[in-house]
Amino acid sequence: MITPPTVSTGAHVTEPPTAEAIAALDAADPLRAVRDRFTLPDGVIYLDGNSLGALPTATAARVATVLHDEWGTGLIRSWNSADWIGAPQRVGAKIAQLVGAAPHEVIAADSTSVNLYKLIVAALTAQPSRTVVLSEPGNFPTDLYMIESAMQAVGGGHRLVLAPRDEIAARIDDDTALVLLTHVHYKTAELHDMAALTAAAHARGALILWDLSHSVGAVPLDLRGCGADLAVGCGYKFLNGGPGAPAFLFVAERHHNTLASPLGGWMGHARPFAFVDHYEPAPGVARFLCGTPPIVAFAALESGVDLHLEMDMQVIAQKSRALAALFIDLVAAHCAPYGLTLVGPPRGAPRGSHVSFRHPEGYAIMQALIARGVIGDFRAPDILRFGLTPLYLRYADIAQAVSILETVLRTEAWRAPEYQVRQAVT
Amino acid sequence: MITPPTVSTGAHVTEPPTAEAIAALDAADPLRAVRDRFTLPDGVIYLDGNSLGALPTATAARVATVLHDEWGTGLIRSWNSADWIGAPQRVGAKIAQLVGAAPHEVIAADSTSVNLYKLIVAALTAQPSRTVVLSEPGNFPTDLYMIESAMQAVGGGHRLVLAPRDEIAARIDDDTALVLLTHVHYKTAELHDMAALTAAAHARGALILWDLSHSVGAVPLDLRGCGADLAVGCGYKFLNGGPGAPAFLFVAERHHNTLASPLGGWMGHARPFAFVDHYEPAPGVARFLCGTPPIVAFAALESGVDLHLEMDMQVIAQKSRALAALFIDLVAAHCAPYGLTLVGPPRGAPRGSHVSFRHPEGYAIMQALIARGVIGDFRAPDILRFGLTPLYLRYADIAQAVSILETVLRTEAWRAPEYQVRQAVT
Repeated sequence: MITPPTVSTGAHVTEPPTAEAIAALDAADPLRAVRDRFTLPDGVIYLDGNSLGALPTATAARVATVLHDEWGTGLIRSWNSADWIGAPQRVGAKIAQLVGAAPHEVIAADSTSVNLYKLIVAALTAQPSRTVVLSEPGNFPTDLYMIESAMQAVGGGHRLVLAPRDEIAARIDDDTALVLLTHVHYKTAELHDMAALTAAAHARGALILWDLSHSVGAVPLDLRGCGADLAVGCGYKFLNGGPGAPAFLFVAERHHNTLASPLGGWMGHARPFAFVDHYEPAPGVARFLCGTPPIVAFAALESGVDLHLEMDMQVIAQKSRALAALFIDLVAAHCAPYGLTLVGPPRGAPRGSHVSFRHPEGYAIMQALIARGVIGDFRAPDILRFGLTPLYLRYADIAQAVSILETVLRTEAWRAPEYQVRQAVT
Repeated sequence: MITPPTVSTGAHVTEPPTAEAIAALDAADPLRAVRDRFTLPDGVIYLDGNSLGALPTATAARVATVLHDEWGTGLIRSWNSADWIGAPQRVGAKIAQLVGAAPHEVIAADSTSVNLYKLIVAALTAQPSRTVVLSEPGNFPTDLYMIESAMQAVGGGHRLVLAPRDEIAARIDDDTALVLLTHVHYKTAELHDMAALTAAAHARGALILWDLSHSVGAVPLDLRGCGADLAVGCGYKFLNGGPGAPAFLFVAERHHNTLASPLGGWMGHARPFAFVDHYEPAPGVARFLCGTPPIVAFAALESGVDLHLEMDMQVIAQKSRALAALFIDLVAAHCAPYGLTLVGPPRGAPRGSHVSFRHPEGYAIMQALIARGVIGDFRAPDILRFGLTPLYLRYADIAQAVSILETVLRTEAWRAPEYQVRQAVT
């Protein structure tokens, strides 16, 4: 259910909400005080938390403690005394609460890309008679790239089939080894039906791997309830774990001890400190660890996750939908003449926590917005993407952002030459 | 050449140096002032910098800047404005100075284990007609484990041959695809002759991969001069990059664009922000990147590397050898009755920057030492290992550590029951 951004009459919204109505939404927001838990710059409306979450204020102190007390003073002893060695499992168990998994089904480790590789190879190796990996065109690139890498690692006898999202369920067959889907699409915010597609995969004996990078911390998740086999996700988006934060992976308990990691590093060994020559996988999900965990990065990730655990995921999701509805309503009301096309789910439909619009001058428009303090991002070839993080965004921020967007479009400010210059990361 | 810890007569040292002679060594130490660049706890003699380097004082400020200014204020813009996106190459180019490589031959990325996997698979794939990987028994475990993993990934037609170190050169033959050796042995500090073994590998058409985890920052390295093909190394030992710091990898320029990464993630793509469905490797060593770099961890690593770049590697190495000679002399003079056996190179021989002794009660002895502020570590089954980091150790620290060791042995303090209890990381 969507909290209406307007004083709804029950009919489709036609009039944009007034400033007073928006102020009332902020006043009634149960997450109103959470914004103060973040360190945000003045003069910025940050609509890119889906790419890099903002800095939780507690994170700086947490990291400083790890540096000064644990590393500086504790030194090597902190592997035991500060439980550095348990960080992947400890943080994993916390993330498990956000994805509907049991504590021992999740570890934090490596990057999303590396974790994808581990789980795809494990899944394909476990089902040698099936030869197809099924995904969708336009999935997040690294998901598709890691499928290519993993197929190579298992001998080259597999093929990748990319099916449009409305055909995916029908394309699963007895030759499908693995279905790999990103739950919330990184460009469009479209949401796959996790329960239905998991059931469809299982009906044909296939495994399914969910990439939760744009879902975790943004939408409610229930991996166990859906019967999902495998999942990965990102720590630096809605979990606010810091740039390039460690990622996580999930392996359903029923697959523990039957799936094997292709990256059998010492931290995934049954007895890492026995220093024996031959690899022997640890029991459970710990076998999917590989190298030494980056503890300073883990401290920032854990701080972000801890903040999330104080919140009610349903309340976060409800505000996310309301922010999206308001954004869409205001753009419809104020920006209609300027050629923006809403991409992805229509107002009110299930979605992830960002809103995207297509415009042929999308790159320059986004640069002009950023120069005016409205930070979203651009995704080639023509997508303006606006992340809506309920923990630190106000309804008034959305109204102000759309007002600035309207000005940029109306005045064609984006035509300035400096907004045409491409940067390294766009 | 070893700086003599005693007033040498030219003959073999028989008398241990006096306290005055040790004070004179510290007074004359060209690295004397560098200790003040580290944050070290009171009451501790830290002899485990080979496992986890100490905290450079500048690191805390550097990390705080990344958190507050770059992440907190810069937010997503810092990928460009703070050159986060260039961190793997920028830090890699700095590490290149410490390993004798060209700036564009090294990147920092992932863990040592993951980097081993990338390079082993790449090397084996490039030489499909050769079936042997040659290493040594007792190599650092993850090196051997990742060979197992990599052999699996290239189809299972390879085999691992483990030869004692004095037989390795002779065992290289026309079926050898890759020789993988750790330059400085993690237990014994034995040092392989990189130039000779690289030449031996090349004479039979094999590639060679050097693990520099216990070498970089501790002993002078010249990958280019030796003609090495591939290398990996660790950021959290002598580079003082923080617990679980990002690792690095080296690919000789002549192999750029012919070797392929088995982990073809989006950061190793030729155009990562084009978001295309098909993988296309970046030119050069950047293709060995995979996922998003952990920026907070990179900040700590870069701070440690920057400190090293201010120093003269020959001066560091000379002090390392002198510290080792002093440690060995003092143990010989004071601990002879208690059954310690020096492991690895004898006094004066080429070695890495740690000293190890064997003792059947090694575990308990090390716990007793740690309880008395002398922090080394234990490596199963019976090795007491003492790291000698020239940047922050004084000659007087070595003398005091051996004095405490002598007391623990003479009084049999290690027999206390609390020193028998094994911890998670030992």
